[in-house]
Amino acid sequence: MPHDLPTLPPAPKRRDWTEVAAAKYAARNALIPREWRLPDKPEYTNYDFPAYLSDVTGVPARCGILTAEELTITDAPADAILGNVHNGVWTARSVTEAFCKRAAIAQQLVNCLTEICFEDALQRAEELDAIFKETGKPVGPLHGLPVSLKDNFKVKGLDSTVGYIAWCNEPMQEESLLTRILRQTGAVIYCKTNVPTAMMIAETYNNVWGRTLNPYNRRLSPGGSSGGEAALLAMKGSPLGIGTDIGGSIRIPGTCAGLYTLRPSLGRFPTYGARSGMAGQEAIHSVNGPLSRSLSALSTYAAAVVGTEPWHRDHKTLPIPWRTVSLPEKLCFGVIADDGVVRPNPPVRRALDETVAALRATGHSVIDLPPLDHLGGDDLRRQCFLADGGLSIKKVIEEGGEPWPLGLREYGEKGTPHPTTYEMWQIHLARTGWCQKYLAYWAETRERTGTGRAIDGIIMPTAPYAAIRHDRWDYVGYTAVWNVLDWSAATVPVLRADPSKDPADAEYTPRNALDEHAWKEYDPDAYKGGPVSIQVVGKRLEEEKVLALCEVVEGALRIAGHRYEDTFGEAQE
Amino acid sequence: MPHDLPTLPPAPKRRDWTEVAAAKYAARNALIPREWRLPDKPEYTNYDFPAYLSDVTGVPARCGILTAEELTITDAPADAILGNVHNGVWTARSVTEAFCKRAAIAQQLVNCLTEICFEDALQRAEELDAIFKETGKPVGPLHGLPVSLKDNFKVKGLDSTVGYIAWCNEPMQEESLLTRILRQTGAVIYCKTNVPTAMMIAETYNNVWGRTLNPYNRRLSPGGSSGGEAALLAMKGSPLGIGTDIGGSIRIPGTCAGLYTLRPSLGRFPTYGARSGMAGQEAIHSVNGPLSRSLSALSTYAAAVVGTEPWHRDHKTLPIPWRTVSLPEKLCFGVIADDGVVRPNPPVRRALDETVAALRATGHSVIDLPPLDHLGGDDLRRQCFLADGGLSIKKVIEEGGEPWPLGLREYGEKGTPHPTTYEMWQIHLARTGWCQKYLAYWAETRERTGTGRAIDGIIMPTAPYAAIRHDRWDYVGYTAVWNVLDWSAATVPVLRADPSKDPADAEYTPRNALDEHAWKEYDPDAYKGGPVSIQVVGKRLEEEKVLALCEVVEGALRIAGHRYEDTFGEAQE
Repeated sequence: MPHDLPTLPPAPKRRDWTEVAAAKYAARNALIPREWRLPDKPEYTNYDFPAYLSDVTGVPARCGILTAEELTITDAPADAILGNVHNGVWTARSVTEAFCKRAAIAQQLVNCLTEICFEDALQRAEELDAIFKETGKPVGPLHGLPVSLKDNFKVKGLDSTVGYIAWCNEPMQEESLLTRILRQTGAVIYCKTNVPTAMMIAETYNNVWGRTLNPYNRRLSPGGSSGGEAALLAMKGSPLGIGTDIGGSIRIPGTCAGLYTLRPSLGRFPTYGARSGMAGQEAIHSVNGPLSRSLSALSTYAAAVVGTEPWHRDHKTLPIPWRTVSLPEKLCFGVIADDGVVRPNPPVRRALDETVAALRATGHSVIDLPPLDHLGGDDLRRQCFLADGGLSIKKVIEEGGEPWPLGLREYGEKGTPHPTTYEMWQIHLARTGWCQKYLAYWAETRERTGTGRAIDGIIMPTAPYAAIRHDRWDYVGYTAVWNVLDWSAATVPVLRADPSKDPADAEYTPRNALDEHAWKEYDPDAYKGGPVSIQVVGKRLEEEKVLALCEVVEGALRIAGHRYEDTFGEAQE
Repeated sequence: MPHDLPTLPPAPKRRDWTEVAAAKYAARNALIPREWRLPDKPEYTNYDFPAYLSDVTGVPARCGILTAEELTITDAPADAILGNVHNGVWTARSVTEAFCKRAAIAQQLVNCLTEICFEDALQRAEELDAIFKETGKPVGPLHGLPVSLKDNFKVKGLDSTVGYIAWCNEPMQEESLLTRILRQTGAVIYCKTNVPTAMMIAETYNNVWGRTLNPYNRRLSPGGSSGGEAALLAMKGSPLGIGTDIGGSIRIPGTCAGLYTLRPSLGRFPTYGARSGMAGQEAIHSVNGPLSRSLSALSTYAAAVVGTEPWHRDHKTLPIPWRTVSLPEKLCFGVIADDGVVRPNPPVRRALDETVAALRATGHSVIDLPPLDHLGGDDLRRQCFLADGGLSIKKVIEEGGEPWPLGLREYGEKGTPHPTTYEMWQIHLARTGWCQKYLAYWAETRERTGTGRAIDGIIMPTAPYAAIRHDRWDYVGYTAVWNVLDWSAATVPVLRADPSKDPADAEYTPRNALDEHAWKEYDPDAYKGGPVSIQVVGKRLEEEKVLALCEVVEGALRIAGHRYEDTFGEAQE
């Protein structure tokens, strides 16, 4: 099955699990109509072909499958789509069909989908059109917008395998609360997207669906665990996708695929009824949030979901409405240029430098914020994730008789520490202590900003890497520390790695093995075209403020000459 | 030391721990000035004396230690005190001294205090008066209000033993965040109050300080674990006290001592830096909240604390301001008359019946709300509390070389189940599932209220008992289910047990051992004078609404002829 996936670890020859996977894979592919299939060209499918196409973002526009109007629709940002549907310019049906087609094309190039429900989506779109025709009103704020979901969100009648063989062929009887809420707001669910097994790897591959590739450079990873979403969005096969994030799983694919993303604090968006990689683990909560090529789409989504008052239906959602924020005219950002553990690669440093320069050029101040024990923070994350000794994952892997995916080795090792509940309580205390220190550290910045206020937000790399080669991602500290704190964090795409601007550091004395790996791994030519975002961080439950800060950053970058379209179009080769 | 405490379990003859306790006890008593000491009369101190005084609430007014003005001050509700201090009618010094004196009297009658810092309090009050004189303004909304704290709140220079021998003579170097915030709002900290060991018993006794008695009937318990607070407040030795609640520890003493109380959801008031009985246990979070003889004092306190925006200083506090609420004119309450596990005793049934009648008489509707698996909810609570196999408590008990307090037996038993972290995750899932069901159950009431809205709140007993005899409390399900849900709950005092109105049920077929115990235990004569409150429950983070509902309940009870002063004055014998 993973015949076109160059670096998947070799699978043992066990008939049972490979048969399950092959059947799932074939069944999914069969859901792509013949007329939406790409021609069988070696540049699309053969990794070893000399003219193998690395950057496939331009294929949809020239493959002839999409009409001119469908290209216009799928090129449009979510808010423009909503505007056109709600004004009767486009039908939900035409929008949905356009995205189904483009998602199908994306699937054939980067293997980003898991479950497909194009037929149901088209039918629902027609229902929405009928209601709109009859009432003249949209059913909700997302009326007619196709929304793609990470595989762990349950959709009635579809599997939610999250990459596990054992969870194949068990169609869901009930939907995740978020799925139901999205339907209620008028969104059209048309596909689900690939994840790494258990969603606990920062790339995207598993024994059921194989590996998802980065559309900007298929020799690179789209990151993970929401990597299927990221790849689909970068292909413009979706205007808005929903991922989950427990250590960076929204933001890492976001930076790898040049997307705007939001990782909210626990309690803004409902989490009930979605599948988890480590169900019941609460020391660091998984949350869900949006990814999009459009920044404004994140606010539109958030306002729509929070506007349904999900706290009446989800025990863990907080009764906090989507609030308006007004920022001071002159902001002060704290910048964490380096987390002290792994030094960012050259393209990442350039992205941060250019962002800082752009902010300063537009009158904002930026002060240096030395990292506060990020090594300790990431170690707490690791302790919490492994606190069951890997048992939650091990049970499902073994049930499916599948080999351990490379990135989950740590969960399968026999010697993994297995704290008692008493010991876990001590880890909770250490985590709370670490969080209290960071909160105090933020407050103390008021002595350095010159405004009398503390900093308005933090800007920093989303990761030490630009989009990285397959199987190389081994450090999530840049994102995970904010999961430990449960702070709100977003990403803004800035640039793509460019060998002419991002030469490797010939001389460097690494601090540790992770740092050495990151330094040695960087190769300007191999990483060409890999997107880089910066991360904008606010405190707990400051999602509205963080998105407003992203607007400021985005505005400053535009004034400085960065244009999303220029940066993220197909590479001219 | 516990010479006047009739039912404390006999202590083994170990010299070390009894000496530690005796020294602590004597040192505390020495902090009560000679002129504030009650005469050594047997009716005060000798339980076996025929004229032993059961109801001691009237002693302060007639013992001659307090001046007429001091009686006026200590009789006043918190808001009136604040008004008089902020208008310059009373000084903070005079108010503080009045409460120090009355707290000292209370201590001698019901053994409610642990640490005493009258001198510091008087000095602070003088500072506040000086500031007020100079600026004409209070330093904050609680300027000049004496506030008593449960023993687990840290005050610099004082112990926080929470009843453990091992934690004696370790004066705190830092204060709990709430202590600091209270000082910032102008409150005067003057004493701390007794708790059961580890705060994990629904009564109030420990090997350091002995047992706290119920001022309305010293043969009854003031409940626990915030029982010292409750006893002090009922003696009018404090206008406002702060307790903690993980299974009912604010509300149970609240009902036993005729108080208004609020158990908030996690995140309204800062919890950082207070001592915990089971540090690091997060499956059901401990929270803190106010107790008072005045309902309006609860809102005043909440607005003052939340007004300092504690989320900038406490990682677990949510950025939700203290909100104004407006209730519909006609409300609909769901009433849980019986939780299906332990049937309420006659005085409790009467309190609920009278409340329901009063609400109906004022135009509100009340619908029957059958309990939804409260047995399962309380069992989840128990599983979470015991999840470390009792180790957290055991370590400190053993370190102090003290005997196991009766009510903690379960934590010390060798066979206590000890789930692994993996098993704990499964308990989390069961808890979340149980909570989701209750949330849906609430939402479904919209089909039965007749208003199209769901119920506005739940009213129910706070406990199946009125204030109970010492060592008899063995069921906390009426309060604990709301801790499992982390919903907001308050108590409103309604009446006191009256043998002429609350005859025992001669015939009854108990449902289970707990129910049988409650039924057999009820004795109209023994329980005479024991206060009873009802509980008003809202959903998560609905504290403002719950207090507004309490005002409605309180108003209805007044219209129906209930008057707090009549109900809770000294019994006329």
